[in-house]
Amino acid sequence: MTRQIQVGNVAIGGGAPIVVQSMTNTNTADVEATTRQIQRLEEAGCEIVRLAVPDQKAAAVLPEIRKRASVPLVADIHFDHRLALAAINAGVDKLRLNPGNITDPKKIAAVANAAKGAGIPIRVGANSGSLAENYLREGRATAEGMVQSALDEIRLLEDEGFDQIVVSLKGTDVRMTIEANRRMAEEVDYPLHIGITEAGTPWEGAIRSAVGIGTLLEQGLGDTIRVSLAGDPVEEVRVAYEILRALGLRDRGIGLHVCPTCGRTGVDLVSVADQVRRELADVIEPLKVVLMGCVVNGLGEVKEADVGLVGSREQGTIYVDGEPILVSVPEDQLAEEIVRAARGYLRKRRRTDD
Amino acid sequence: MTRQIQVGNVAIGGGAPIVVQSMTNTNTADVEATTRQIQRLEEAGCEIVRLAVPDQKAAAVLPEIRKRASVPLVADIHFDHRLALAAINAGVDKLRLNPGNITDPKKIAAVANAAKGAGIPIRVGANSGSLAENYLREGRATAEGMVQSALDEIRLLEDEGFDQIVVSLKGTDVRMTIEANRRMAEEVDYPLHIGITEAGTPWEGAIRSAVGIGTLLEQGLGDTIRVSLAGDPVEEVRVAYEILRALGLRDRGIGLHVCPTCGRTGVDLVSVADQVRRELADVIEPLKVVLMGCVVNGLGEVKEADVGLVGSREQGTIYVDGEPILVSVPEDQLAEEIVRAARGYLRKRRRTDD
Repeated sequence: MTRQIQVGNVAIGGGAPIVVQSMTNTNTADVEATTRQIQRLEEAGCEIVRLAVPDQKAAAVLPEIRKRASVPLVADIHFDHRLALAAINAGVDKLRLNPGNITDPKKIAAVANAAKGAGIPIRVGANSGSLAENYLREGRATAEGMVQSALDEIRLLEDEGFDQIVVSLKGTDVRMTIEANRRMAEEVDYPLHIGITEAGTPWEGAIRSAVGIGTLLEQGLGDTIRVSLAGDPVEEVRVAYEILRALGLRDRGIGLHVCPTCGRTGVDLVSVADQVRRELADVIEPLKVVLMGCVVNGLGEVKEADVGLVGSREQGTIYVDGEPILVSVPEDQLAEEIVRAARGYLRKRRRTDD
Repeated sequence: MTRQIQVGNVAIGGGAPIVVQSMTNTNTADVEATTRQIQRLEEAGCEIVRLAVPDQKAAAVLPEIRKRASVPLVADIHFDHRLALAAINAGVDKLRLNPGNITDPKKIAAVANAAKGAGIPIRVGANSGSLAENYLREGRATAEGMVQSALDEIRLLEDEGFDQIVVSLKGTDVRMTIEANRRMAEEVDYPLHIGITEAGTPWEGAIRSAVGIGTLLEQGLGDTIRVSLAGDPVEEVRVAYEILRALGLRDRGIGLHVCPTCGRTGVDLVSVADQVRRELADVIEPLKVVLMGCVVNGLGEVKEADVGLVGSREQGTIYVDGEPILVSVPEDQLAEEIVRAARGYLRKRRRTDD
């Protein structure tokens, strides 16, 4: 069990639910674009948002972004500790320092003391691609090197009496990342922020992240996760929740179960599934939707669903709460009617919960 | 270490490379469609193909399908052991029996003896959705129930002196599936076929499969994998290889590494990546393609790639084997030129390997 760290109003570690993070990929200095992306991330369920602060121009707009956003914000700092001090003054809720490029003990002490004064935590975030030379072996990153680089930075923070620390060790290599996190968990009880760096586009990036993050979470390691994907960061949040749902750790929004389809399948289930998922993307409450191609396993499976479909020849029967509510719906209206049924079911469930 | 089982010319377990399987979703009796899909699966790297044999009509065409296909074929049998006997006569390379619906010891003995005569193995494949009543707890499947159901069937086969066995325990629940496989690995040394059943469409199905299969493989469990997705089974094979590549277990075809993109990124990397992946889908040899949005980490990363891109404002430089070969390529020609460079590189590498 890790200790618990507070980031704004969000708790990380110590038994709190696994927190979902992401990072903007706008030019941070573009306040409108950045604020809009933060808003979209928050709507998708992102609970902590990180922003790159590569220069004073970005640091200068942080107070305005902080004012407009409601989710806790993390300033991502590399190389220049003065940007960390500026971000603290701007009211961010957490810092991320890279031990690979901020190594001067005096500068780290200055940041630790400012963060302590502001009451915000620091993530010590080591990355296989940016380890300092002395932590490499034959020019290459290793799990041990990542652990040592982060531990040395942690000790410098602790020397200043600073213990509001989160640790991350991210590599492009899944096995190295898993190994590094296992070792770190034996060394410290700070919460672990886990992820695979530069994982790729949403296609291979989701798979690599699911393997790496999933393996660690299944073994009880990891208190907050970020899925790193090229492209729209909202997709990172969607993949993150799907990983958490797969392990029964969090449930949010639509959870789709679709039969594998076979020669018996009477309707194009994948198209129906994709449309339903897209149109219900705004749903926050857990909603189990089961789409089955035929009656063989269908009748049993839809009983366990909030909303279900059992297909037959170019049509289907729609179920809500285990009961058929619409029969012989033509294939081209299935997605639409499932969405309508789901919205109706959610309205009713909300009223019942009141 | 599991014992090794031979399926046609493919070895499963005992230190052999993890084998990638998939299953046709055509009507098996439609020989043309089924043969065409088997061919597509094989081209995608599928090493063993399973076919549903739901009735005598499907069993009757197996000899013709067996004649036309070159990959080992598995007959998937439920309920009726006579279909298993017919499939053995048809020359299939392996059977899959479901212990949830073929339970009569006499019938299992008949199948075991016929399989022994034909020299083919049997997969005992338990599924959380089709366990016999007596293995359920309060009407629900458990990890223990899956293990017991499979073990009882295994013992019946062993009673006939049959030991060419592969075991699978698949659930829709990822944790239950992991738990069941862990327990089974303590009970027997037969190879494990692993997968998550009814995982969903390629979107959530890939993520759930990566979490479940990835977690087991990372811990050394699993000798052959099937990713179950709704839709085209070729996508199952692609996802399977991506899971294996993430863990460094297999490498096949294009492996893409794409930087996460940020405000600095000068070109639409995700579009380039998607186009390159699509156009190089036929490549079988391992090919590492690295696409970076700018020079910051780009110059270092492309050095490790077979083919690389470093983007800048609406153009980019293409690298082969770490060396720049084309500069100032306009954005709309990047994908095309990367594909051309990759094909040239592969031709050259093949010649060098000769």
